[in-house]
Amino acid sequence: MEPFQSQEEVEEEEMENGLEKWGFRENEDLNTASGFTIRQVINMVMENLDAGDERPTIPLGHGDPSAFPCFRTSPVAEDAIVEALRSANFNGYPPSAGIPPARRAIAEYLSRDLPYKLSPEDVYVTIGCTQAIEVALTVLARPGANVLLPRPGFPFYEARAAFSHLEVRHFDLLPEKGWEVDLDAVEALADENTVAMVIINPGNPCGSVFTYQHLKEVAETAKKLGILVIADEVYGHLTFGSNPFVPMGVFGSIVPVLTLGSISKRWMVPGWRLGWLVISDPNGILKKTKIVECIKVSRNISPEPATFIQGAVPHILEKTKEDFFMKIIKILRQASDICYERIKEIPCITCPHKPEGSMFVMVKLNLSLLEGINDDMDFCFKLAKEESVIILPGVAVGLKNWLRITFAIEPSSLEDAIGRIKSFCKRHGKRQ
Amino acid sequence: MEPFQSQEEVEEEEMENGLEKWGFRENEDLNTASGFTIRQVINMVMENLDAGDERPTIPLGHGDPSAFPCFRTSPVAEDAIVEALRSANFNGYPPSAGIPPARRAIAEYLSRDLPYKLSPEDVYVTIGCTQAIEVALTVLARPGANVLLPRPGFPFYEARAAFSHLEVRHFDLLPEKGWEVDLDAVEALADENTVAMVIINPGNPCGSVFTYQHLKEVAETAKKLGILVIADEVYGHLTFGSNPFVPMGVFGSIVPVLTLGSISKRWMVPGWRLGWLVISDPNGILKKTKIVECIKVSRNISPEPATFIQGAVPHILEKTKEDFFMKIIKILRQASDICYERIKEIPCITCPHKPEGSMFVMVKLNLSLLEGINDDMDFCFKLAKEESVIILPGVAVGLKNWLRITFAIEPSSLEDAIGRIKSFCKRHGKRQ
Ligand SMILES: Cc1ncc(COP(=O)(O)O)c(C=O)c1O
Ligand SMILES: Cc1ncc(COP(=O)(O)O)c(C=O)c1O
Repeated sequence: MEPFQSQEEVEEEEMENGLEKWGFRENEDLNTASGFTIRQVINMVMENLDAGDERPTIPLGHGDPSAFPCFRTSPVAEDAIVEALRSANFNGYPPSAGIPPARRAIAEYLSRDLPYKLSPEDVYVTIGCTQAIEVALTVLARPGANVLLPRPGFPFYEARAAFSHLEVRHFDLLPEKGWEVDLDAVEALADENTVAMVIINPGNPCGSVFTYQHLKEVAETAKKLGILVIADEVYGHLTFGSNPFVPMGVFGSIVPVLTLGSISKRWMVPGWRLGWLVISDPNGILKKTKIVECIKVSRNISPEPATFIQGAVPHILEKTKEDFFMKIIKILRQASDICYERIKEIPCITCPHKPEGSMFVMVKLNLSLLEGINDDMDFCFKLAKEESVIILPGVAVGLKNWLRITFAIEPSSLEDAIGRIKSFCKRHGKRQ
Repeated sequence: MEPFQSQEEVEEEEMENGLEKWGFRENEDLNTASGFTIRQVINMVMENLDAGDERPTIPLGHGDPSAFPCFRTSPVAEDAIVEALRSANFNGYPPSAGIPPARRAIAEYLSRDLPYKLSPEDVYVTIGCTQAIEVALTVLARPGANVLLPRPGFPFYEARAAFSHLEVRHFDLLPEKGWEVDLDAVEALADENTVAMVIINPGNPCGSVFTYQHLKEVAETAKKLGILVIADEVYGHLTFGSNPFVPMGVFGSIVPVLTLGSISKRWMVPGWRLGWLVISDPNGILKKTKIVECIKVSRNISPEPATFIQGAVPHILEKTKEDFFMKIIKILRQASDICYERIKEIPCITCPHKPEGSMFVMVKLNLSLLEGINDDMDFCFKLAKEESVIILPGVAVGLKNWLRITFAIEPSSLEDAIGRIKSFCKRHGKRQ
């Protein structure tokens, strides 16, 4: 035993020495999981802001439009929370899988778009889609296992996989094919230790919306490979192009699907931290395996959303008016149009595919047209400094020298922001 | 690669075979963490209830009195949540460590009882004290490390330690010394791989409240051993005996302390899931080590409490009226008196120490005075069946043939319940 200090009274110096062993106490799992989160990269970009610029800073970096008045959530949702709270029926601990009325309401909400009916038992209420990702990767981890993730993607998957010692293999999304999954790459990457592939649809960071046909091909590929599909549908229903939103669970009879989602995006309340992990598996295959059992254990030892927020879920999912959703979609469509059209005016960035869903678009940086800009990170740092516009460097989502632009802000600010990007690019453009 | 099925159309049977490999997909970490939780044991006890008994079931099993009208939370706390929600200022994602006003309010709240001032940076907002336990054990885990836990204790510690591959060593709490820590045992158990010891004060399951002197000895022992103290103070301020509540952080200059707490118990709102992990370390020792860094990474990859609940924290901690707290303490004192006095009337169970805090008391079962009762589990099963009273078998908290009784219920129901336990014991008592 190494005591903190040998005597009652010692100098602080000695105390530190005595504590030396703390210095070695590195937690490897946390170390490997400590790659940059999107938030950290955005904070790094924001550190470049010029306090002297009197124009408002325009945030096109993160996917949280909840602070803009035009995206304020439905009063129905707010009322539902207040009602649940005031009832005092939801002050006690929730069951670890979620309170039955919330599980039932989520099952019914998702079943509307499926060819079969989900049971409340298929639903695990989680703290946002974020915790649903955590649960999915935790239960699938085992020594030697690997998971297939999209590139570009959502780096929280990489962080959680690292924490769980789950090897990550990346397949590309193909910009020239509307950011569809490169299914040949998926087949080439998978082996007998592959446990699942992840798709994010509607897509972050690409703004893509997969067709019925493509999703079916994803299901068939996964089935052929004997792997699960983890379908991140946190942007479900946020579509405004020609492809409608088709939940992956539609193909649950081809291959078992874990559907992840939340109210964060469709209701514009990411701070409410309410999501779900749903077993979309009408053949009940996962029930016969250890997966469902593991999900239950995992829920027993990890935190749950506040009970009264769960208590509000039935009301939120059943009573939100269609015109709230329509208003949001209309603003997003308008914003994505502005974004796509105005970016065409800027020579050094190109958008290979018009966004049709979610809140984001990926644009490619043509560095050869720019002077004194090293890479995407440098572009974003200097843009923040000179124009007070925040954009996410593509490297944060796995594509170096691309940019992820969030268009889910007030359309007038978006116009303003793209104008600023345009003058930035002009100023830094190579003279021909 | 083992495909799900070799052809397009196969029988379900074949499909299952193709999925065989799922059967092997055991997640060892989850397996080892799957020991019974208190909730699961209570559910097992409740399965014995006799639907034919027309008397109300009296729940003395779990520590959640929020459903009883006499324990309804303060209107100040409810109003604070509604106000934060209605402001629409808290719909966005929170920072992973918590929103600054909540961190500040918690630092100030806890500093009231300390000889130094905590900084907001010392505070990490968590999803109840439960997640604070998870964070503490996650960051301390490393290959070969061990942690010292009290017996009897709170089995969530064992579950999370198992999940993190942290070896558990138990020290006893001594009933004959008012459930104080057996510090000789602590010294004997610790070695160079011991990272921390856990104390729960006020105590679950014993209802003990440690003296200033005993806490100081705990600090000095930990210092001598070079280990951290994890102080679970989720029942902080819920004391009604002669010992006042002294936070372990008072001794933070002797040994670094991680203080875990929440609003769950003092405000009677466990379903709100709002807690904290606080670094009570005025010498800043943990800042110089990797521990603080690991806590930050851990918070980056794990869920946060809803933002608007965090937004309500300053109001809740600062504005709750003293008379609310006094009312709760008065009921708990009355209930603990009833419990202690009436148990004396029952020969086959004895209470070695009158509870002075929290919501629980441990009583010892004298099986030699009973006929046809095998052990504590059997006692609880039969009591549920015959008397519709739910009690937690001691084995669930590490003490076989003891019982944990929760007295935090309406005093009249408590009287009723103890009456029923008395007749149960009489009926099953050995004839002399
Ligand atoms: C692809 C993807 N998955 C999951 C999440 C997390 O969602 P939630 O806010 O519901 O936790 C996000 C948030 O931006 C996301 O973009
Ligand atoms: C000793 C102890 N620690 C932690 C907790 C969990 O507290 P919270 O409800 O704040 O998550 C409990 C709950 O019963 C407990 O008894």
